[in-house]
Amino acid sequence: MITTDILIIGAGPTGLFTVFEAGLLKLKCHLIDALPQQGGQCTELYPKKPIYDIPAYPEILAGDLTDKLMEQCKQFEPGFTLGERAETIEKQEDGTFIVTTNKGTKHQAPVVAIAGGLGSFEPRKPLIHNIADFEDKGVEYMIKEPEMYRGKNVVIAGGGDSALDWSIFLSDVAKSVTLIHRRNEFRGHLDSVEKVQELKNKGKINLITPAEVIGIVGDDKVKAIVVKQAQHIEKEFEVKCDHFIPLFGLSPKLGPIANWGLEIEKNAIKVDNSLDYQTNIPGIFAIGDVNTYPGKLKLILCGFHEATLMCQSAYKIVNPGKRYVLKYTTVAGVDGFDGSRKEAPKAVVKAFD
Amino acid sequence: MITTDILIIGAGPTGLFTVFEAGLLKLKCHLIDALPQQGGQCTELYPKKPIYDIPAYPEILAGDLTDKLMEQCKQFEPGFTLGERAETIEKQEDGTFIVTTNKGTKHQAPVVAIAGGLGSFEPRKPLIHNIADFEDKGVEYMIKEPEMYRGKNVVIAGGGDSALDWSIFLSDVAKSVTLIHRRNEFRGHLDSVEKVQELKNKGKINLITPAEVIGIVGDDKVKAIVVKQAQHIEKEFEVKCDHFIPLFGLSPKLGPIANWGLEIEKNAIKVDNSLDYQTNIPGIFAIGDVNTYPGKLKLILCGFHEATLMCQSAYKIVNPGKRYVLKYTTVAGVDGFDGSRKEAPKAVVKAFD
Repeated sequence: MITTDILIIGAGPTGLFTVFEAGLLKLKCHLIDALPQQGGQCTELYPKKPIYDIPAYPEILAGDLTDKLMEQCKQFEPGFTLGERAETIEKQEDGTFIVTTNKGTKHQAPVVAIAGGLGSFEPRKPLIHNIADFEDKGVEYMIKEPEMYRGKNVVIAGGGDSALDWSIFLSDVAKSVTLIHRRNEFRGHLDSVEKVQELKNKGKINLITPAEVIGIVGDDKVKAIVVKQAQHIEKEFEVKCDHFIPLFGLSPKLGPIANWGLEIEKNAIKVDNSLDYQTNIPGIFAIGDVNTYPGKLKLILCGFHEATLMCQSAYKIVNPGKRYVLKYTTVAGVDGFDGSRKEAPKAVVKAFD
Repeated sequence: MITTDILIIGAGPTGLFTVFEAGLLKLKCHLIDALPQQGGQCTELYPKKPIYDIPAYPEILAGDLTDKLMEQCKQFEPGFTLGERAETIEKQEDGTFIVTTNKGTKHQAPVVAIAGGLGSFEPRKPLIHNIADFEDKGVEYMIKEPEMYRGKNVVIAGGGDSALDWSIFLSDVAKSVTLIHRRNEFRGHLDSVEKVQELKNKGKINLITPAEVIGIVGDDKVKAIVVKQAQHIEKEFEVKCDHFIPLFGLSPKLGPIANWGLEIEKNAIKVDNSLDYQTNIPGIFAIGDVNTYPGKLKLILCGFHEATLMCQSAYKIVNPGKRYVLKYTTVAGVDGFDGSRKEAPKAVVKAFD
């Protein structure tokens, strides 16, 4: 059982900044995210895209925003359960909550902050009749641990940045990489497209286009996939492989959270914006894009504010009866849980000769 | 008469970010500030102090924060009335407001956003019986236009960074600079203190400590000040000068805004935090440190959020009946009023050979 003060569902920008604000109040945080890394959609969907409306950043790449937030909160030593989706929540008699993931990992905390963005990102799956039989038996919709592909024959399907970037990456790790796409054209960053071209010319990536994977062959695990190619004459053939990785994008779904007994409106969680972004269940808050209230804007900067106000109420739940007085970081500095201290240089008092 | 869409009282971080968010909605802004430069207390009180709780900035100097916000909003071409204090407000029959400053400058807008921080910064004045007679006749409490001191004899009083930094700066501009402080010790940044020491040794700054200015001599303008020095034997003497600049710090006062008919609570303006941070007067909003509501935290990041939500209501007032649909800057880019455009690079579509 993982225990913490604030259990945060979602490790996107809002969840990460919660760690910092909670840390200022000496509250510890643990984050659960269905994605294998921090940053939410910023990292997963558009890490190289600039965002222009983060205050005091005339321009910042979404991936860099995640890095900055990780750096800002690291002194408060957050815990992470990544690549697992928060599945169920149970309120205990002592008022704490136990949240269990789809992999069975259990977390206990007196405060739960849902910072789930647009929901947990679920992969779009190709329409192959027997694909469900091979999930986690050679079929993966997301690459969580690249090392598991070392020395293996890998087939990747897809035509976007994920398919291109992972083909490039795995060409150095796997025994062979085959990239299959239903069109001749790929849609990705110029340098990724050029790199794949170069690796194809060197024989390090096997490219099959325009083509589709229409079947999977295997017993207890994937042995080959069936490809239907449509160039010139239509033909079908098998490609032997240990892994088949369809990378057709992710689409967010509110998912199991929708069954937690929370008031839901337009696929978002209703909260009390007149005070602390608490949901209809005391002790459970919803912050960032996942919540809704009159006038709500789904902007990262709003999530930062909501997280900050929420932490004040979390403090009162974790420390009943204790009063917290706001101190400015510029005046009081920041004390990390790792023993680090940041503080403004003190003005020098000096006499002249 | 200066006319605009949103008239912002206060050019601190919240006021500056309002320009950006309003610009995204194609609303123009004009800002009034009693200080001679943008940035509010960040620039005036602690430009060299690090702030640790600006989201995604593990550390940023308050002065740099102002620079970044100025850069972010400059494409929306804000207007500024600086060094003047918003004094009176009148509602017109057409629903617009006219705000007049202490210097008589008039501004008209359908929306007023008070982003006044802790209030307008009023200088702490030394207790010299006839000082009021010489205000703006050789006595200035704030340096707004350094060029007016060129070739003049200047006396500065004070022992902090402002007194040190302006003594250094004016030593190159004025005919003579005398720095007077009631203690031998100065409290400032090490490099400022060392620089003053160096200029004193070179004879470019005349230092009198421990001493106090106890009188002003002159007819229609300052001709000299009377100094009482307490080292060894107490003595009084005159120092001839054209300007006497006491820099004893600034303290914020809500000031004339307190008489605008707004609901005030604990020296702050009450707003409706359940929607758009509007005050009890429709069309007048209060954002940032100047407002109060249940759970209010006086943090810069909260001002950013409040400004953003306020702009949505401002849009409806400026464009009655028109509907605004939020577009993400990452998707739609940013169109400046100066003709500039920022946008995310489009993904390349490319076929392989």
